[in-house]
Amino acid sequence: MQAASHYFRFKLAYDGTAYGGWQVQENAVSIQGVIEQALGQLAGAPVKLHGSGRTDRGVHAMGQVAHCALPSDWQPARLARALNALLPADIRVMGAARCGLRFHARRSAAAKEYRYFIWNADILPPVLRHYRAHIRAPLNVAAMQQAAAQLEGRHDFAAFTANPNRPVESTVRELSRLQVRRRGAEIVIIARADGFLYKMVRSLAGFLIQVGAGAAPASATATILHSRVRTARVPTAPPQGLFLWRVFYRRATG
Amino acid sequence: MQAASHYFRFKLAYDGTAYGGWQVQENAVSIQGVIEQALGQLAGAPVKLHGSGRTDRGVHAMGQVAHCALPSDWQPARLARALNALLPADIRVMGAARCGLRFHARRSAAAKEYRYFIWNADILPPVLRHYRAHIRAPLNVAAMQQAAAQLEGRHDFAAFTANPNRPVESTVRELSRLQVRRRGAEIVIIARADGFLYKMVRSLAGFLIQVGAGAAPASATATILHSRVRTARVPTAPPQGLFLWRVFYRRATG
Repeated sequence: MQAASHYFRFKLAYDGTAYGGWQVQENAVSIQGVIEQALGQLAGAPVKLHGSGRTDRGVHAMGQVAHCALPSDWQPARLARALNALLPADIRVMGAARCGLRFHARRSAAAKEYRYFIWNADILPPVLRHYRAHIRAPLNVAAMQQAAAQLEGRHDFAAFTANPNRPVESTVRELSRLQVRRRGAEIVIIARADGFLYKMVRSLAGFLIQVGAGAAPASATATILHSRVRTARVPTAPPQGLFLWRVFYRRATG
Repeated sequence: MQAASHYFRFKLAYDGTAYGGWQVQENAVSIQGVIEQALGQLAGAPVKLHGSGRTDRGVHAMGQVAHCALPSDWQPARLARALNALLPADIRVMGAARCGLRFHARRSAAAKEYRYFIWNADILPPVLRHYRAHIRAPLNVAAMQQAAAQLEGRHDFAAFTANPNRPVESTVRELSRLQVRRRGAEIVIIARADGFLYKMVRSLAGFLIQVGAGAAPASATATILHSRVRTARVPTAPPQGLFLWRVFYRRATG
């Protein structure tokens, strides 16, 4: 059989509730693994799927991006339909397109946007239970916005990653957008950056929730950020509120 | 032990996905049964819960109403919290209040509102898969609205119930509101009546979907309604799009 030579990129949405996370691993079903299995069925041979990045256990996606090589050509819309027919309903291919050999879902990504959803009321409606962090204490959104504004920009985010001892080249990231909005009982935190450290969004959300609840003053933000040390002042917010919303690529690499 | 003499009414929300329906039955876990079990734990004795009506397998509720008698008095907000602590996250007591002996969740109800949600696009987002009927064919909402307008009012709805041979006193109902609205890919059908026949909302939705898809003309509505015979022109729409939205009571009976 001819070596794989047809490249495709996918926009993926998934409900992370039932999975151990994006990445293939032992002892848990992964989203990547389930999609690779469907691709393998279509290709008649193992297919490796490359995502824009991992999402943790229980984290969802509206716009994860991934690419792969297939041994034969497909009309992209037909490929998406064929995959959706094989995939479980909690994983959907929202779109498919041909891409060049130079496109890499992770390395070509210019920026990513995550959205963290909070249900800030006494009772969490049942249909939202897997998709919202439930915070009963009334949150002060103005204070959260004050803190968020101080976190925007190019900073060393070592204080906002779960494992600062994990070897990474740098803990500096450009957080181009960190916004907090309320609509009724729902509060959404929108975080866009050129890249995110391990559990960075859930750490930012955890800190902003502390600020909103009055457990930390917004004025402490700069001190915590500049300390570059992760402490108990920055808890990790629960996974089910988090959605990988969108991945941005420079036009040339698409 | 003293006989039960403290009466409470509840506003209930539930995700019907995992249940055999509202009503206690053999071979399936029911929503009523799960709540009765929690009430029984609090009361230390069996408690009978009376709902405003049954919801079928897979049907959800945002505002089901039910009442019961308890052997001792409770502060209503405390009772709601105690129940929510015992109940699974897919069933929530959204509110509790004391009620009089004369209040009956079903018999005192003046009207009910159901909402039927359709996702009208090629691909159903994973997080909505249990809460929307997925209709790929583009639906003509204007045609659905034309048909709906002809169904509003006081009519014999025998053509829109799943089992017209089931003995009921009358198949005449006052459908005070039947509206169809689109917002992007989402179409919602709002149905309010003084009462609903068995599977009536899903039959109305099934017919409106046929009209929207062009499989039946809106002009056929009156003929079907006046035939008072259920035929294949009126399919039953799937349960997961349906929510019991609200139950209305006259003030005096509350």
